[in-house]
Amino acid sequence: MSADPAPGRVEIVALDGIPEIAPGDDLAALLIAAIERSPGLLPLLADDVLVVTQKVVSKAENAIVDLTTIEPRPEAVAFAERFDRDPRQIEVVLREARRVVRMERGVLITETPHGFVCANGGVDASNVGPASGQIVTLLPRDPDASARAIREAIAARLGVDVPVIVSDSFGRPWRWGITDVAIGVSGLEPIEDLRGTPDADGRVMKSTIRASADEIASAAELAFGKTGGRPAAIVRGAHPRRGEGRIADSIMPREFDLFP
Amino acid sequence: MSADPAPGRVEIVALDGIPEIAPGDDLAALLIAAIERSPGLLPLLADDVLVVTQKVVSKAENAIVDLTTIEPRPEAVAFAERFDRDPRQIEVVLREARRVVRMERGVLITETPHGFVCANGGVDASNVGPASGQIVTLLPRDPDASARAIREAIAARLGVDVPVIVSDSFGRPWRWGITDVAIGVSGLEPIEDLRGTPDADGRVMKSTIRASADEIASAAELAFGKTGGRPAAIVRGAHPRRGEGRIADSIMPREFDLFP
Repeated sequence: MSADPAPGRVEIVALDGIPEIAPGDDLAALLIAAIERSPGLLPLLADDVLVVTQKVVSKAENAIVDLTTIEPRPEAVAFAERFDRDPRQIEVVLREARRVVRMERGVLITETPHGFVCANGGVDASNVGPASGQIVTLLPRDPDASARAIREAIAARLGVDVPVIVSDSFGRPWRWGITDVAIGVSGLEPIEDLRGTPDADGRVMKSTIRASADEIASAAELAFGKTGGRPAAIVRGAHPRRGEGRIADSIMPREFDLFP
Repeated sequence: MSADPAPGRVEIVALDGIPEIAPGDDLAALLIAAIERSPGLLPLLADDVLVVTQKVVSKAENAIVDLTTIEPRPEAVAFAERFDRDPRQIEVVLREARRVVRMERGVLITETPHGFVCANGGVDASNVGPASGQIVTLLPRDPDASARAIREAIAARLGVDVPVIVSDSFGRPWRWGITDVAIGVSGLEPIEDLRGTPDADGRVMKSTIRASADEIASAAELAFGKTGGRPAAIVRGAHPRRGEGRIADSIMPREFDLFP
C-alpha cells in the first residue's frame, strides 16, 4: 500500500486473520493487531478510514439473540409458515422494530430504533458462527458509539486519529441486490454537502449532497470478498471530510422523503 | 498500482488528463490514451473494471439538449416558478420520462425509458462545460451499448477484454445524499446471486444478492474526487463475476418491489 496515494488514487486493504468474534471479545484490540500484521499498512494516515462490518461489532457487543429462547407471536408464526421462514426470527424483527414498513410475500421491512429502513430490521442469520441456525445478530444499539470506541482505541495504541465506519448490507427499492452502507460513524461527516462548491467548469453545483460514508462502505465491501471471512478494511485516499458527524445525519426525515 | 493485488486488496486509479468532451469525440480513444499515460496501469488485467461517468458518455454521444430550443408546457412553467427551477429543464425531464413517480415540493422523480427511477430522470445540468446554464445532458439511450463500444475499443487497442461500467449519481429513499451506481455494463454480471454459496462458517447464505456493479461504481466515485475533473477510473482487484450481463438485470420489476 502506498504511504500516501496520489490524488485520484484510492486503495483498500481488507484485514486478514481476524478470528471468529464472541461476545465480550476486545474487537478493537483484534482490529489493531490485524492492522499491525498487515504488510505496508503502518503508519496509518489521518484520513484513512477503518470500515468494520456490523456482524463482528454486534457479536463483540453481545447484540445477539439465541432463537431457542424466543416465543413467536401468532402473527409471526402465520407469516413464517406461509413464506417458509423462521417464526422466531420474524418475532425478533418485530420486537426490534420502531415501525413495520411492509410485511408481505415473505418480505419484512421495518424501521429500526436508529431510523434505518431495511429488510428484517438488520436482524441477520448468516455468518454468525458454527452454531448457526439458532443465533441471529441485532444491529448495535448505538453504532456511532461502537465506531467511536474503536477509533479511540486506535488513537491510543497507534497514535493516529482514524475515522471509523460500521457498515451493513442493505437492499434498495427499484434495484436488485444489496450494497454496503454506513450504519455508524466516528470522526467523519457521513454526508458532504457540496452545494455551493464550484464544479470543474467553475459553475456552482446546485444539488450535490454526497453520501461519502456509504460509498466508502461499498468500496470496502469489494475488498471483504464474498464469504464473510474478512470483516474489516482500511480505505486509503478517499479523503472524507473529517468532523464529528453522526449517522443520524444520513437519515432523511420522513417529511422530506418524496420517494413513494 | 500493483500488477495483481493480493486477495482482499482493491486499487482504484482515476484517469487524468481527459479533456472536456464534445459531441462526436472519440471517447474510447481518449480513455485509452489516458490509460496509457497513467503510471503503472498497463498491462490491464482481465478483471480490471473501467468505470466511466454518464456525463462524458452522454456528451460524446450528443445526448445533450440546448435549453434555448425548449418550449416548456404550462405544467412545467407552473412547477418551475413555484420552486425556483428552470422550466425548460422540467420540460426535458417530462419528455424523457416513461412515468412520473413524484412531482412535488420542487422534486421531480421519474422512471426513465431504461427503467431507472431517479431524480430529474437523470437529466443533469452540472459539469456540462463552460456554456453552462443552457445545456443539459440526458442519459445515454442504451448505456449497455455505450459500455460495450468502449470495451471493444479497449480490447482492439490494448488486447485485454476489460469489463466497462457507465455510472451515474442517484439519490436513494430514506437517506440523504447521492451515491454512484451502474447505469450500463458490458463484460460483467451487475448482480451476483450468492444464494447457495457457503459463507465463512460453511453455512449456506440464503438471501445474498450482491449489487457488485453498483459497489464498483461507488468505489470509483471516491477516486474521481468532488469536482468532475476526473470522469473515469480503473478499479483493480474487485473480481467481478464476468459475463454478458445487462443493466436491466439490476432493475427490480415493480411487482417484486415491496418497498413503499
